[in-house]
Amino acid sequence: MGVYSQSFELCTSRKGLHEITGQVREVVRASGLGSGMCNVFICHTSASLCIQENADPTARADLEAFFERLVPPDQPYFQHTSEGPDDMPSHIKSALTEVSLSIPIQSGRLSLGTWQGIYLFEHRERPHRRKLVVSVW
Amino acid sequence: MGVYSQSFELCTSRKGLHEITGQVREVVRASGLGSGMCNVFICHTSASLCIQENADPTARADLEAFFERLVPPDQPYFQHTSEGPDDMPSHIKSALTEVSLSIPIQSGRLSLGTWQGIYLFEHRERPHRRKLVVSVW
Amino acid sequence: MGVYSQSFELCTSRKGLHEITGQVREVVRASGLGSGMCNVFICHTSASLCIQENADPTARADLEAFFERLVPPDQPYFQHTSEGPDDMPSHIKSALTEVSLSIPIQSGRLSLGTWQGIYLFEHRERPHRRKLVVSVW
Repeated sequence: MGVYSQSFELCTSRKGLHEITGQVREVVRASGLGSGMCNVFICHTSASLCIQENADPTARADLEAFFERLVPPDQPYFQHTSEGPDDMPSHIKSALTEVSLSIPIQSGRLSLGTWQGIYLFEHRERPHRRKLVVSVW
Repeated sequence: MGVYSQSFELCTSRKGLHEITGQVREVVRASGLGSGMCNVFICHTSASLCIQENADPTARADLEAFFERLVPPDQPYFQHTSEGPDDMPSHIKSALTEVSLSIPIQSGRLSLGTWQGIYLFEHRERPHRRKLVVSVW
Repeated sequence: MGVYSQSFELCTSRKGLHEITGQVREVVRASGLGSGMCNVFICHTSASLCIQENADPTARADLEAFFERLVPPDQPYFQHTSEGPDDMPSHIKSALTEVSLSIPIQSGRLSLGTWQGIYLFEHRERPHRRKLVVSVW
């Protein structure tokens, strides 16, 4: 058994949660693996990953709003501000969520619960091109 | 080498940390694996996982109290409230902790530190039946 | 394919982020693996792991300052204080960050983004000897 991996890029047009469950499922399908594990890794420190409720969009809006309030921009003690007021909050929000997610595969499918979706959490205001690596074993 | 996996359910009678180290160890033992990795995955977005101090129960009580204060219910901006005031805080607390934990196995045993226990962190008040998948490779 | 693992210890002389990317890379190189996965696990509940910006040191200083403010010592509701005022905040900061990190390996190298470094996040004031397990498969 080796590890099958595929990278993909996502252009984020706005701050907040962007669902990537479909793209991850596609890699699992392409691998042909029946049972095993899948890892999603994001190669950045100002965007991150999380698994969240995929049904009601207000759950995602509330989650985004909470993180905005927990890590407000323009803190007087921030020194790392050369890239703008959303730079340092982005790093902090990344540290509070995930850079890497491992999910079981059973019968050729991700073992996600009914209400679980995989999301890229973009923390920067401006559009960014984000690189992700999906590994399956 | 393939991946050996087993699912189990836990009925949570109350909010807070519920130790599951024993159940995870049982799967590792059943797998017969000498050295490798173990992953614990929770199939929900309103309960999560964490590794915490397993000795003094006050450490867990303080951790639970901190999360209650960090993510209070009834925030004026919460829109996702149809399932009650503990619904949205549950999703946020899940995003702040873990949905997936990977732990090394050495000499047939989880390589946990002396004071590390694996916990299911239930964020809902009412009892819930929670599904977990343990994978070993 | 089996799992290759190596443990190492780090003596932390001060609170905050300590880069361990070099030590993890060394284990990947020693494993001789071309493509696969690497996991870093910390065997403690008062120090943790994170992947953060490795260029500008002010990003790390700001991150440390944020966590100090988010989880202040001497909360009136803390009961777990026998090991000092930084004991309980350490457990909470660990729960908010990572105990385990899985990173893809491609062409014999960690697939980290340009600005990503792996850090041990020491939450205790006093020097500690921290044990980490690096697993490669």
